[in-house]
Amino acid sequence: MKLASYHNNTRDGQLMMVSRDLGRICDASDIAPTLQQALDDWDNVEPKLQQRYDALNDGTVLSQIFEPERCHSPLPRAYQWADGSAYVNHVELVRRARGAEMPESFWTDPLMYQGGSDDFIAPRADIVLPSEEHGIDFEAEVAVVTGDVPMGVTEEKAAGNIRLLMLVNDVSLRGLIPQELAKGFGFFQSKPASSFSPVAVTPDELGDCWQDNKLHLPLLTTYNGKLFGRPNAGKDMTFNFAQLIAHAAKTRHLKAGAIIGSGTVSNKQGTDFGSAIADGGAGYSCIAEVRMIETIRDGRPSTEFMKFGDTVRIEMLDASGRSIFGAIEQKVRRFEAEAP
Amino acid sequence: MKLASYHNNTRDGQLMMVSRDLGRICDASDIAPTLQQALDDWDNVEPKLQQRYDALNDGTVLSQIFEPERCHSPLPRAYQWADGSAYVNHVELVRRARGAEMPESFWTDPLMYQGGSDDFIAPRADIVLPSEEHGIDFEAEVAVVTGDVPMGVTEEKAAGNIRLLMLVNDVSLRGLIPQELAKGFGFFQSKPASSFSPVAVTPDELGDCWQDNKLHLPLLTTYNGKLFGRPNAGKDMTFNFAQLIAHAAKTRHLKAGAIIGSGTVSNKQGTDFGSAIADGGAGYSCIAEVRMIETIRDGRPSTEFMKFGDTVRIEMLDASGRSIFGAIEQKVRRFEAEAP
Repeated sequence: MKLASYHNNTRDGQLMMVSRDLGRICDASDIAPTLQQALDDWDNVEPKLQQRYDALNDGTVLSQIFEPERCHSPLPRAYQWADGSAYVNHVELVRRARGAEMPESFWTDPLMYQGGSDDFIAPRADIVLPSEEHGIDFEAEVAVVTGDVPMGVTEEKAAGNIRLLMLVNDVSLRGLIPQELAKGFGFFQSKPASSFSPVAVTPDELGDCWQDNKLHLPLLTTYNGKLFGRPNAGKDMTFNFAQLIAHAAKTRHLKAGAIIGSGTVSNKQGTDFGSAIADGGAGYSCIAEVRMIETIRDGRPSTEFMKFGDTVRIEMLDASGRSIFGAIEQKVRRFEAEAP
Repeated sequence: MKLASYHNNTRDGQLMMVSRDLGRICDASDIAPTLQQALDDWDNVEPKLQQRYDALNDGTVLSQIFEPERCHSPLPRAYQWADGSAYVNHVELVRRARGAEMPESFWTDPLMYQGGSDDFIAPRADIVLPSEEHGIDFEAEVAVVTGDVPMGVTEEKAAGNIRLLMLVNDVSLRGLIPQELAKGFGFFQSKPASSFSPVAVTPDELGDCWQDNKLHLPLLTTYNGKLFGRPNAGKDMTFNFAQLIAHAAKTRHLKAGAIIGSGTVSNKQGTDFGSAIADGGAGYSCIAEVRMIETIRDGRPSTEFMKFGDTVRIEMLDASGRSIFGAIEQKVRRFEAEAP
């Protein structure tokens, strides 16, 4: 199934169902008014949604043309957003760029940060931020949405708790990260609101590409109209989504609608320095990684972070070249605070 | 006003209104079904709630005896839970106990961590955790619930966004903190679910005790039936709640129902080592602080963390000795994972 939330002047939007080819959309709010409410009562709601989805794909239910610009993030706000860092290659590069060793334990103990989830950005809305000086970056990722997950869940059981997948732009303020992490309490101001793909999909939609709790497809990032990255999200993912969920649930329950992110998708590409798209490589899912490679190679970074007016597009295509989740497509814009 | 959420077999509970003296309770779910929904539409809902509250206190509306054991945390789940560390004395002690200097900037730049908010513990429910080895501790705190707060809000405007106050038990797993913070991404497994007082109150209920965006009353913590702390929450609070909100909103909007915590309440008490209740002092709001003082004084801690079966009670009384928020009253219990 493919689900979306249309703007309807409420905080949580209206639950909609999108056809497999993303061509058509129909209302599903009579089954559950919002996606959160569907997730809250998934066992009851899921069969009804499935029936509607079949009818939508068969063309036997009233539908409209799908307009992604009318979408909220599938969950416009959520009760839990925890982001892993499963592509350890990315983490190793960060460390190497600043001349630090990465602890061996990072290969066995996932990094994960607690994100803010009260105000996600819509997939086609501008990223509105106060200052370019903060070092604005995108991070292209994959995320899952869980059902209720009990504390201490095993990896095997966690796999069965994955309800939906989405793409993420985990917007980061690189200039604020060093001071903030030095304080010892993790990210806060350096991780402003994230955005998610227009459409959330159930794992069965992904066919063979969903294996070992990883999504084996290239994640396409286009920066200012130019392809910037196409690393395969199934490759070099040290911790799969079931492992990330089990890590998150070690000392707590996770409740329906919890979002668990993969971290920036990154492929090792057989070289110490990765390889840009222009060099025939898989490219990157964030600017920071290019800058790290430049630093390791040249002694200093040369690619700048995002400026106001810059655009980023994040998408994933199936084997036949069709968009699975719809595209995140955003421009960075200056925030104008209200007059005091 | 005093608001609570009664268990009603839903995830968010039923919005209830509690009389000023905590003696009586009446339904308010006809005005807004849940506290989150009330906060989502506060400007419209607040006058109706106020009218009901007046009637409840006058005894002109149908009411029952208030039973705090029927309460969820006022927000059983929330979209945002960010916890400051406003009592810098506490932070300085942590550092000193491990022989580290505290950066000067900690007096001007608040520490804040992003907490998980999808599954708060009810104020009279057991704290259920997998292992005593994790170093189970309580942290008695005060928190505010905000309305919609725009990015870049000034301290002055932030003050006007405070809708409610609550008490918190920010349960912490001390044994997991050092390794987790060393990874650089902040708390995750070391900060399991928190619990909140049975009742959330509007600032006007606090009269003169609410000044300068601080709550000037002793916060009482009773550990295994013995008074453990009574530090004044208005004293030694380096950052007030308006400042904490402004810090949280620097690069993001905060949405209605965001919870911002004070961090462990701690008084300096005119000595380098604080002073226990038994010595006539104000005592402490967490076990870790006692252990730090023991470490500084004796070279090693002697007070143990919580064991299964231990109890903690957190409460605040008004000038006439009446409970303002009701008491958080919890026992620590071992979590039994489902059979795999």
